Amino acid sequence: MSLKALDYESLNENVKNCQYAVRGELYLRASELQKEGKKQIIFTNVGNPHALGQKPLTFPRQVVALCQAPFLLDNPNVGMIFPADAIARAKHYLSLTSGGLGAYSDSRGLLGVRKEVAEFIQRRDGYPRLTSFLGWLDSGSSATVSTLLSYISLLGGTLVPYYLEETDNWGLDVNNLRQSVAQARSQGITVRAMVIINPGNPTGQCLSEANLREILKFCCDERLVLLGDEVYQQNIYQDERPFISSKKVLMDMGAPLSKEVQLISFHTVSKGYWGECGQRGGYFEMTNIPPRTVEEIYKVASIALSPNVSAQIFMGLMVSPPKPGDISYDQFVRESKGILESLRRRARIMTDGFNSCKNVVCNFTEGAMYSFPQIKLPPKAIQAAKQAGKVPDVFYCLKLLEATGISTVPGSGFGQREGVFHLRTTILPAEEEMPEIMESFKKFNDEFMSQYGDNFGYSRM
Amino acid sequence: MSLKALDYESLNENVKNCQYAVRGELYLRASELQKEGKKQIIFTNVGNPHALGQKPLTFPRQVVALCQAPFLLDNPNVGMIFPADAIARAKHYLSLTSGGLGAYSDSRGLLGVRKEVAEFIQRRDGYPRLTSFLGWLDSGSSATVSTLLSYISLLGGTLVPYYLEETDNWGLDVNNLRQSVAQARSQGITVRAMVIINPGNPTGQCLSEANLREILKFCCDERLVLLGDEVYQQNIYQDERPFISSKKVLMDMGAPLSKEVQLISFHTVSKGYWGECGQRGGYFEMTNIPPRTVEEIYKVASIALSPNVSAQIFMGLMVSPPKPGDISYDQFVRESKGILESLRRRARIMTDGFNSCKNVVCNFTEGAMYSFPQIKLPPKAIQAAKQAGKVPDVFYCLKLLEATGISTVPGSGFGQREGVFHLRTTILPAEEEMPEIMESFKKFNDEFMSQYGDNFGYSRM
Repeated sequence: MSLKALDYESLNENVKNCQYAVRGELYLRASELQKEGKKQIIFTNVGNPHALGQKPLTFPRQVVALCQAPFLLDNPNVGMIFPADAIARAKHYLSLTSGGLGAYSDSRGLLGVRKEVAEFIQRRDGYPRLTSFLGWLDSGSSATVSTLLSYISLLGGTLVPYYLEETDNWGLDVNNLRQSVAQARSQGITVRAMVIINPGNPTGQCLSEANLREILKFCCDERLVLLGDEVYQQNIYQDERPFISSKKVLMDMGAPLSKEVQLISFHTVSKGYWGECGQRGGYFEMTNIPPRTVEEIYKVASIALSPNVSAQIFMGLMVSPPKPGDISYDQFVRESKGILESLRRRARIMTDGFNSCKNVVCNFTEGAMYSFPQIKLPPKAIQAAKQAGKVPDVFYCLKLLEATGISTVPGSGFGQREGVFHLRTTILPAEEEMPEIMESFKKFNDEFMSQYGDNFGYSRM
Repeated sequence: MSLKALDYESLNENVKNCQYAVRGELYLRASELQKEGKKQIIFTNVGNPHALGQKPLTFPRQVVALCQAPFLLDNPNVGMIFPADAIARAKHYLSLTSGGLGAYSDSRGLLGVRKEVAEFIQRRDGYPRLTSFLGWLDSGSSATVSTLLSYISLLGGTLVPYYLEETDNWGLDVNNLRQSVAQARSQGITVRAMVIINPGNPTGQCLSEANLREILKFCCDERLVLLGDEVYQQNIYQDERPFISSKKVLMDMGAPLSKEVQLISFHTVSKGYWGECGQRGGYFEMTNIPPRTVEEIYKVASIALSPNVSAQIFMGLMVSPPKPGDISYDQFVRESKGILESLRRRARIMTDGFNSCKNVVCNFTEGAMYSFPQIKLPPKAIQAAKQAGKVPDVFYCLKLLEATGISTVPGSGFGQREGVFHLRTTILPAEEEMPEIMESFKKFNDEFMSQYGDNFGYSRM
C-alpha cells in the first residue's frame, strides 16, 4: 500500500528534525505531571508572566476593551466604569481603523500605530525617523523572525551556531564569530543573517555598547543582515548597563556604516514588563533595507492579509503610554513600578540563590526574564545520564522536575559548549514564592550532587 | 561591491515570483486613488465586511471586552452596561485560560475552546467526535493553509491548477482533476494535497453532496490529503443547496473511505456572517491524520508558542452562541438574521445586476461572499489590453476602477481557462448603496463594450 500524503513517513525530514526545547521533552513531562495532579508544577520554562500571576496593566486593557465594544462609547453609563482618558484613547485608536477591530488592516499594520511606533523609536534613540523605517505589526517575534528567515534561506537552511562568553558576562567574541562564519563558508554554506537577542535570552545579559559596535562592524564586513531581537528592552534590572538599541549604536557610528548595515529590530507586547503574551502583537523596524526588498516583504505579508488588530492597539499603547497629567497616569506608573521593581528583586533572589548552591554558578540577570545557571555536573551524573539515554542536562532537569515541580529548559536546547551544562529558568514566579522555590532547588541540588558527586569535588568558578 | 543579504538581487526567486491578486496591482492602484482623495473607492476586492460598514454582533464583543478587562468583573456597576449572560460567559472563558488573555495558551489552543469546537462539529455533522480530531486555533485560514502546505512541499513547491465548471454551477469535474494530476506526475511533480473552498471563493457556489463524494473518492484513489477551506459555511443565500461539510460526506460514505481519506477542514471567525476579520481566529480539524504526524504538527506549531487568545474566545463564541432563554438570545438572533437576510438580498441584487449587463454572465452567488461574473471581452478590448501591456481582465478592472471607484480582483489572479475573463467582487457593500453601485457598473460596462465592441457582438451564454 503506497503512503498517504500525511503519513509520518511522508513528512519532510526538516520537520522531523526540528527541535524546540522550550516546549520539548521537559514541558511535555511537566504537563503530564500536572495532569496527574500529584505535584504542583512551577512553569518557569517559558516567559509567560500572566500565567504565573502577574496582573495586566489596567489602562491598556481598558482601552482595548472599549475598542472591542465600541457600542459602549454611546452608553451614558460608560463613565462609571471607564476613565475619560481610556475612552478618549479608544476613540483615537478606532479612528485609525477602517471598521474597528473586526476589519482587516493594511498588511503592514495600521498607519496611525506605525506612526506612534516611529515616534517612540525617535524618542528612544534620538534619531529622526529614517525613510527606511517601516513599522510592522505581527504575531510575536518568534513568528516574525522565522518569517523573515524564510526569505533568506528556504526552510531547511543551516543554522550556524555561535557561543556567548560566560566568563565575560555573556558577551560576544567577534573573533569566534568570524571563525564560525569562515568555517561555515568553507563547508559551502551561504551565511546571510546573524541573530542577536539583547537583552539576552536565555542568558539575561545587556550587551555593552562596545560589543554592539563590534557586532555591527562584523555584520558590515561579512555582508550579513543583523536581526536584533530586542523584545526585552524594558526588562532591565540594574543601572550600570542600560539597554541600548542596535539602531542607536549603528547611527552613532556614522557613515559609511550607518548607511550600510542592514538591520531589522524587533519588539513585542509579549515581553517588556507588560507580559501580554497571549495578545500576539509586535513590530519590526527595518534599517538600510532597499525599497524593492521592502516591497517584496510587503507583498508576501499581504497573503496573510492583516495582523490581529487588537494587538496592534496594544503595541500603540505600549509605545505611547499615559503621560503626566493624564487621569490614568498615576495608576499606570504605580502598576508599572510595582512589576519592574519586583522583577528586579526576583532577579537578585534567583541569581543569589543559584550561586549559593554547590556546583552551580550564575551570572546576574541584568535584563530579560531568565537566569541561566551553569550546573557543573559530576562525571558520575554524566555517566548515569548516558545510561538513561539522556543528554546530561536533560537528565538533571528531569530529576529537578520530578523532585520539585520546577519546570526548566536544559541548556542543550539552546546550544552550549561541549561538556558544559546549564538550565534556563524564568525569574517570573511570584516574589513571595521565590524563597521557597530556591530553597527547594537547593535541597534538590544538594541531594543530586551528593548522590552523584565523587571525591574529587568541584571548585567554584 | 558584493551583495548584501537583503539586497533585492539576493532574494529568493520564489519570493519574487509570488503573486497575490487580492492585494495586487488593482488594490495598490485603488489605495493610490483613495490617497489622492479624488474618488470614493468601494473596496470590494477583499471579504472584509466591517470595513464596508457591517456592525459587529453585540454579545461576542461584550464577552471579549470583559475578558480583556477582567477587573470589571469585580466592579459593582458592571451590570449597568453588560448583561448577566455576557458576564457569566466571560468568567467561563477566563476560567479556561491559564492567566487571562495575556498568557500564552497551549499551542493547539485552549483545551476548553477545543471542546466547544468538537461539540459544534458533532452537532453539525451528526457524528461523534473522532479521536483523530484536534482543534487548532490559528491566525486565519490563509496563514494556516500555507503553514500546512509547508509540511507537504517546501516553499517553492508546485501548484497544480484545476478549473471549475462554470456551466455546471462551478462544480468540479473529477475527470479533469485526474488529468491534471496525471499530467503533473508525468512532469515529475509529487502531488500531495488538494485544496477545495466550499462555499466557493471566488465563485460563490455550494458544492453538491454528489460532487463532494467524487472529490473524496478521487483523493482516496490518488492518496491526496484534502484541505477543505469551509470558512464560509454560515454564508448561504439559498435553500436548495445547503452547505455540507466534507467531513460529514466522508463519514456518510462509510468504511473503508471514512477511515482512509486524510482530511483537514478549516473554519474561521473572519468569515461566516460574523466577519471578524481583524481578530484572526480559526481552527482546523484533522480526520485520519496519523497521531505521529499530529505530534509533528504540534511540535512545529509550538515554535510560535500560542495563537492569539482573544481570537480563540471569538471562535468559542461562534461555535456556541447564545441559546434560547439566554438574556442576549433575542438580540443575537435579531442581529444575525439582519446580516444574513441582507446578504441574501445583496447576492440577488448583484448577480441579477451583472446578468443585466451586456457581455456579462454570472452564476448566482449561492454562498460565501463573492460574485464572479464572466466578462466576454471583445477582440478589440483584448487587443487594447495587449497594447497597454496588461492581461485583458486586469485592463478591464483597472478601467472599471478609474471610472467608478469599484475595486475588484481580476479573474486571472485566481486562474481561469485560456481566453475566458472574469472579475471577483464581494457582495458586501451596504445594501442601500448596492443599486447605485450596480448602476454605475452597468454604465461603465455599456461604455466599455461600445468603445471596444465590434460589429459581430456576443451572444449571451
